[in-house]
Amino acid sequence: MIEAIKNHRSIRKYQKKEIPANLLEEILLAGTRASTTGNMQVYSVIVTTDNVLKEKLWECHFKQDMVLQAPVILTFCADFNRFSKWCMINEAKPGYNNFLSFFTAAIDAMLVAQNVCLEAENKGLGICYLGTTTYMAEKIINVLKLPELVVPVTTVVLGYSDEEPGLTDRLPLGAVLHHETYQNYSEKSIKQLFSEKEQMEFYKNIVKENGLENLAQVFAQKRYTRNDNVFFSKALLSVLEKQGFMNNE
Amino acid sequence: MIEAIKNHRSIRKYQKKEIPANLLEEILLAGTRASTTGNMQVYSVIVTTDNVLKEKLWECHFKQDMVLQAPVILTFCADFNRFSKWCMINEAKPGYNNFLSFFTAAIDAMLVAQNVCLEAENKGLGICYLGTTTYMAEKIINVLKLPELVVPVTTVVLGYSDEEPGLTDRLPLGAVLHHETYQNYSEKSIKQLFSEKEQMEFYKNIVKENGLENLAQVFAQKRYTRNDNVFFSKALLSVLEKQGFMNNE
Repeated sequence: MIEAIKNHRSIRKYQKKEIPANLLEEILLAGTRASTTGNMQVYSVIVTTDNVLKEKLWECHFKQDMVLQAPVILTFCADFNRFSKWCMINEAKPGYNNFLSFFTAAIDAMLVAQNVCLEAENKGLGICYLGTTTYMAEKIINVLKLPELVVPVTTVVLGYSDEEPGLTDRLPLGAVLHHETYQNYSEKSIKQLFSEKEQMEFYKNIVKENGLENLAQVFAQKRYTRNDNVFFSKALLSVLEKQGFMNNE
Repeated sequence: MIEAIKNHRSIRKYQKKEIPANLLEEILLAGTRASTTGNMQVYSVIVTTDNVLKEKLWECHFKQDMVLQAPVILTFCADFNRFSKWCMINEAKPGYNNFLSFFTAAIDAMLVAQNVCLEAENKGLGICYLGTTTYMAEKIINVLKLPELVVPVTTVVLGYSDEEPGLTDRLPLGAVLHHETYQNYSEKSIKQLFSEKEQMEFYKNIVKENGLENLAQVFAQKRYTRNDNVFFSKALLSVLEKQGFMNNE
């Protein structure tokens, strides 16, 4: 297996050490080799290293320390602005201010992000994805001055690791695979597939610390709650509207 | 650079040759090493090899020959069904039937897909992403029997290549990078960034074949038209609704 895939860990503590410009460039170049819809390359990557801007991004990303520690913050955006401008210059009427185009561009951006992360790890750097990007998209748009038809879909912090975490546990492969068609889960199969995870000391301690009965409650009641999800769903849909991606008529 | 990243080509012609089960398993295992939101693994991969099902998928994917040729079709899905069932069994109320959760799960699925593609290429196989997945999501859901809270986000055909295409052109790296904040494009910069592409014989011939004035018109008027985008935007939003991902209140 590709070493960078096999050894991936999310890194949340970084050394105070810059990334050489030529190294960063080759890592970013790896992103552009990813598949892209119709070879349109409908994405942009914002490379932020300035401390004032990083502090603003840190506030957007729920003040997670790694955003300040890591020397480089990469914001991967769905971007139909550049492509639409190219169309208009060429008297070709762009029709990309709609939800399908947003989602197409978001897929492009995610493939670029994963190539960049793997190449960074291949070069000895550490990375961590920030899921807060979609929650706080509106503020990030303001900080990074993203124009219409540009929406941030994920953020990656990048730098030299200052920790050595072990591999993260995963469900058994069979939990996420389906042969031929989707094989829905019985209560029994769910219990089996999650039992190894639920028995880990690491998770048992988290359940205890949270004063809850089980791990599922930690997720549903503390980490990823319905209230937050509903709140941030509205925020994200409103961002898509404001950035011009919801003209579906 | 990781060889699989550097040498990636989309493969559209496949040999009639099966993929050994243990090889396929290691490739799929690489997918599960990708970052995943909160380690929830809110994705599923449907592995389709049955000829009757493949023919149905071929119809969904605009009858592209490679869907019939390639021995394995992988449909990557955003999946909050498994996780929500786990919550319900544990008396934890799941709150994932909303747009944010769909998008979170879609990001998970895309990272898995890209790991799988790179590992497949690392093992000497060819791959091609099918953008038709989001256009035809409703039909794919029927063929693959996807339950509520499961939506296909991309499809990859996988097999032994029967062609040797060259590397695909890309815009200069500067076209997709922005330093510190988004640097919007002037008409002059757009012209510069796209000029190399526009001058390629390959694209000049396509423009000529289509009887149009320039490459941008090929995209906006033939390949990715406003009418299609609007039509498929409505279809995709309706699929999100039907699969239970639009309860944002």
